[in-house]
Amino acid sequence: MEPGTIWLLVTAAFVLFMTPGLAFFYGGLVKARSVISMMMLSFGAMGLVFVLWVLYGLNMAADGDGDLIPHVLGNPFSDFALSDLTKADPSALAGIAFGSTFAVITTALISGAVADRARFGPWMIFAGLWATLVYFPTQGWIWGGDGWIQNFSVGGREVLDWAGGTVVHISAGAAAFALALVLGKRKQGFDKESAEPHNVPLVLIGAAILWFGWFGFNAGAATDDGTGALIFLNTIVAPAAGILGYIVIEYFKDGKPTAVGAASGIVAGLVAITPACANLSPFWAIVLGAVAGAACCFAIDLKYKLGYDDSLDVVGLHLVAGVIGTLYLGFFAIGLDSFTAADGDAAAVAEWSSLGLFVGGGIDQLITQIVPVIAVMAYSFGVAFVIAKALEATIGFRVTEDEEIAGIDNVLHGGEAYKFD
Amino acid sequence: MEPGTIWLLVTAAFVLFMTPGLAFFYGGLVKARSVISMMMLSFGAMGLVFVLWVLYGLNMAADGDGDLIPHVLGNPFSDFALSDLTKADPSALAGIAFGSTFAVITTALISGAVADRARFGPWMIFAGLWATLVYFPTQGWIWGGDGWIQNFSVGGREVLDWAGGTVVHISAGAAAFALALVLGKRKQGFDKESAEPHNVPLVLIGAAILWFGWFGFNAGAATDDGTGALIFLNTIVAPAAGILGYIVIEYFKDGKPTAVGAASGIVAGLVAITPACANLSPFWAIVLGAVAGAACCFAIDLKYKLGYDDSLDVVGLHLVAGVIGTLYLGFFAIGLDSFTAADGDAAAVAEWSSLGLFVGGGIDQLITQIVPVIAVMAYSFGVAFVIAKALEATIGFRVTEDEEIAGIDNVLHGGEAYKFD
Amino acid sequence: MEPGTIWLLVTAAFVLFMTPGLAFFYGGLVKARSVISMMMLSFGAMGLVFVLWVLYGLNMAADGDGDLIPHVLGNPFSDFALSDLTKADPSALAGIAFGSTFAVITTALISGAVADRARFGPWMIFAGLWATLVYFPTQGWIWGGDGWIQNFSVGGREVLDWAGGTVVHISAGAAAFALALVLGKRKQGFDKESAEPHNVPLVLIGAAILWFGWFGFNAGAATDDGTGALIFLNTIVAPAAGILGYIVIEYFKDGKPTAVGAASGIVAGLVAITPACANLSPFWAIVLGAVAGAACCFAIDLKYKLGYDDSLDVVGLHLVAGVIGTLYLGFFAIGLDSFTAADGDAAAVAEWSSLGLFVGGGIDQLITQIVPVIAVMAYSFGVAFVIAKALEATIGFRVTEDEEIAGIDNVLHGGEAYKFD
Repeated sequence: MEPGTIWLLVTAAFVLFMTPGLAFFYGGLVKARSVISMMMLSFGAMGLVFVLWVLYGLNMAADGDGDLIPHVLGNPFSDFALSDLTKADPSALAGIAFGSTFAVITTALISGAVADRARFGPWMIFAGLWATLVYFPTQGWIWGGDGWIQNFSVGGREVLDWAGGTVVHISAGAAAFALALVLGKRKQGFDKESAEPHNVPLVLIGAAILWFGWFGFNAGAATDDGTGALIFLNTIVAPAAGILGYIVIEYFKDGKPTAVGAASGIVAGLVAITPACANLSPFWAIVLGAVAGAACCFAIDLKYKLGYDDSLDVVGLHLVAGVIGTLYLGFFAIGLDSFTAADGDAAAVAEWSSLGLFVGGGIDQLITQIVPVIAVMAYSFGVAFVIAKALEATIGFRVTEDEEIAGIDNVLHGGEAYKFD
Repeated sequence: MEPGTIWLLVTAAFVLFMTPGLAFFYGGLVKARSVISMMMLSFGAMGLVFVLWVLYGLNMAADGDGDLIPHVLGNPFSDFALSDLTKADPSALAGIAFGSTFAVITTALISGAVADRARFGPWMIFAGLWATLVYFPTQGWIWGGDGWIQNFSVGGREVLDWAGGTVVHISAGAAAFALALVLGKRKQGFDKESAEPHNVPLVLIGAAILWFGWFGFNAGAATDDGTGALIFLNTIVAPAAGILGYIVIEYFKDGKPTAVGAASGIVAGLVAITPACANLSPFWAIVLGAVAGAACCFAIDLKYKLGYDDSLDVVGLHLVAGVIGTLYLGFFAIGLDSFTAADGDAAAVAEWSSLGLFVGGGIDQLITQIVPVIAVMAYSFGVAFVIAKALEATIGFRVTEDEEIAGIDNVLHGGEAYKFD
Repeated sequence: MEPGTIWLLVTAAFVLFMTPGLAFFYGGLVKARSVISMMMLSFGAMGLVFVLWVLYGLNMAADGDGDLIPHVLGNPFSDFALSDLTKADPSALAGIAFGSTFAVITTALISGAVADRARFGPWMIFAGLWATLVYFPTQGWIWGGDGWIQNFSVGGREVLDWAGGTVVHISAGAAAFALALVLGKRKQGFDKESAEPHNVPLVLIGAAILWFGWFGFNAGAATDDGTGALIFLNTIVAPAAGILGYIVIEYFKDGKPTAVGAASGIVAGLVAITPACANLSPFWAIVLGAVAGAACCFAIDLKYKLGYDDSLDVVGLHLVAGVIGTLYLGFFAIGLDSFTAADGDAAAVAEWSSLGLFVGGGIDQLITQIVPVIAVMAYSFGVAFVIAKALEATIGFRVTEDEEIAGIDNVLHGGEAYKFD
């Protein structure tokens, strides 16, 4: 096989592994009586969204242009169910496989907001609708080839979002915020004292798989050696600094560094570096990771102050760190001008241009970055809110109070997660 | 390194990871008092079969030709312990590494039939004998270069089994059925009510590692971009549809979708796509996955009706889905004629030929597929039955009733899996 | 991307995954009340050492030459924080990413010696100082380009240590021995009877991730197909034989094979093959794995006889198997003379030269091997001892007796690992 195909396929497998990793990260954080339910939200999304992606999602994500509706939503019927496979470009299939894994993990991320109280069936409907109306088309906006975010520019600067600060993390975070508002607070467990994880090793297993898989997430689309290597190095140091940033703040704020704090710092650093991984020097990636880790350690307390039950901090980690990483580029971004040209030339050196405000690039990049942040956030929040409200008003999204207190694993999935006797 | 070697080695590591994944999948499904024993069956097989493979297994698997005994069993002594390494073709070593991982996981798969009651020593003898007498030679039959399955054809059609529907899943499933018959039913736990897993997250960790590793299993032998990418896409959508097929049936049959059902659906979809991954369009891969998931959800109840204690459903998942996937090719297979030729040409499109009955290819492919299904099933069942009977009659394969009720982890491995106090 | 870059990056991700794997391996082995603390020692090291590596560690590791201090410690300020990225060779960045993962896992390995009784803050200081004063410079000694171990030879023979028998395993093992001596014995738990793991599946999850990741660890630096494939095959069979060697001895010594024994055998085989993976035929790799597994099964009892509390057997596994593997090369090493030249030539065969005493290479290789073993062991032990003593004498390294008995997860990290009720 061609090296480029090998790279895309290996990284696609890495990213696929992330969604179970997310299920374990989320699953370990909830109570023992709702861990099955929590993990099923991710595994259910894997079942549904992978299938929808191949049936029509990839067409919507590939088509960001045309008149109004196609411009916003893409065209789901241009090549339904890959029926034109007889004309398929082999290398396109690898890209389709890679893309499918992004649609799934983004949808699964949202589920962290509805821990302990969402019904499985309505969640599956929500997941299918949200992927269809939000994820598939917004991917087209930014990576579809002719999407409006791709075409947006201020002062000649293009939007920088390498691996999905906007369409993945901000999008999932905004939808999570909508769901937290619609479903409301848990009867039990929505206070800092009782938010203790039932299985810390499971949380860390999840975080470890996420970090491992994130190399594929960030670097899979790289086609030249320098960009790929820089992304890798930044995907190493940003979450590492995220650990330090998070647990240092945690130490001063709460007195003790925790394992969940270390895991949250990893996630914060990974989210923040996602849009920025190809456009920062490793030093500024370290700073970004530390800043994101520290900021998220504060941000996760917002839900208690403002009173929305974003149970597992999708807002506090993904929305906040996604915004930080995307806007940080406005200050510190550099462009790797000659890495592509130097591909394969061992003696080559990189040449850079300055893009961010603080590295001599002026204000234009920052302004350019703000627009997609706001657009994706508003769109995802709005659509998610409407879908969730409609589900809650019709078939009901949330379990009853009795069911919640009885423990939803038994009620919804007919059993408990552990039998150690 | 050459891209082809990189691909083989990375995918070999993926497949190696699958056997521990299987150990966790199986281990989570049993009672807490026999999880160590369950996992040791897989880890023990890893220790033994990897070594046997290098000592003589690879020679048996490479040699499908000659007079009667070598024709059936291969020639274990042609290059004992890779002693001819001084003449080794470097690229052959990568293939030997890749092949070793198949021998190990196939052997380990069988252990699901003997949960809670097999002694470790006899299992190790069984594993060594079965790998030697069944796995090593049957791999030669189909992939050895001149094996009889490879040479078998009806109406000019060759047997299609890309990654081991026959020699892996049908073979392991048939051997598992033999072991279930020889060892008999458990004293406790052989009824649907008490078949609850002791650790659902562990089951899902295992299923996730299996899915991740299965990309290597299915795609490792691909040498052109289009085939590799198609396999990947099919290895994504078939288990995804398997989840949906399984939990939908489970919902209508038992009232609630379960996490073990989702994991079983993943495995069913993966098993079914294994022989078919390079010869189906993604749409028909989705259908296959859904069919396999739904069928296995019914098939796992057979053991209760027929009264054989295939404890963890090796028959109900691997044998059934392996047969479905292999025969499904007779109806829906297509051949990717020009992907190989187009390798590396970005403008290339695939050209296909119709092979299966329902896609215009006539009946010959279906007839061709049936023969190796039956041959491998019968051979593996027969040899496994004889080995197991001989072990049970001599040194004893099964623990005593007292030991079984006391919990075999303590009895066989001197301790318990968990100490949470 | 170039195939060589893809290989380095994929293997870097594999090696990064090993440190969480180690955290689970170690975490499962301790008591339930100190599993968080145990895992935090690894995750904390990930946070700190990755950052230090990019700030200055890579410069120290790259610089093995010059006058005395730079010769020993390297020059940390030659390219602080990769500030010369504007001149970066893209392929060098991939190597920097790969190298960072070695620094982290080596540091984390040491933590096995201080289970149940080390404070987190002092551990972080120790980790940073030890990485700076021992790991970074010793990597320069052997792989830095002009380091003294690299230049050392007896009778024209160069030191063979492909992936870190000396600077990784002997180095970590010697430092662990120093920490065990400085921190002293645990009040509870330092006897063979109470050394039972609290979570055996977690131990095996860790061992499985370690094995998977170790393919990257051993093979990442390979640049030709034959060497890469040989390393893979040896990294498969040595730990497999390690399982067999360990549990056979365990059976005769203690009566029963255990799951922790199987996991320890995997680690022993992996450690022993680390320095030797590119210089042994697979047959002699099997023998090495079996010998290392068996020897470590005896070696882990030394701590009880000699009275040092190397809690999780860093000495008994990593130091002992590291020495075995490094010296074994003196007896059985072969050199792969023509694999590099044959790269990409499918018809090529390997040509070998004899290096070890028992394969006809004379005594020089053995003598050559002994020197770095002793040098690295003494240096790492000495520096670790001084750092640990200084920490214990000033801010205190060990928890109080009350804290230890109360359970350090609550005391140090404000919570318990499990809540199953």
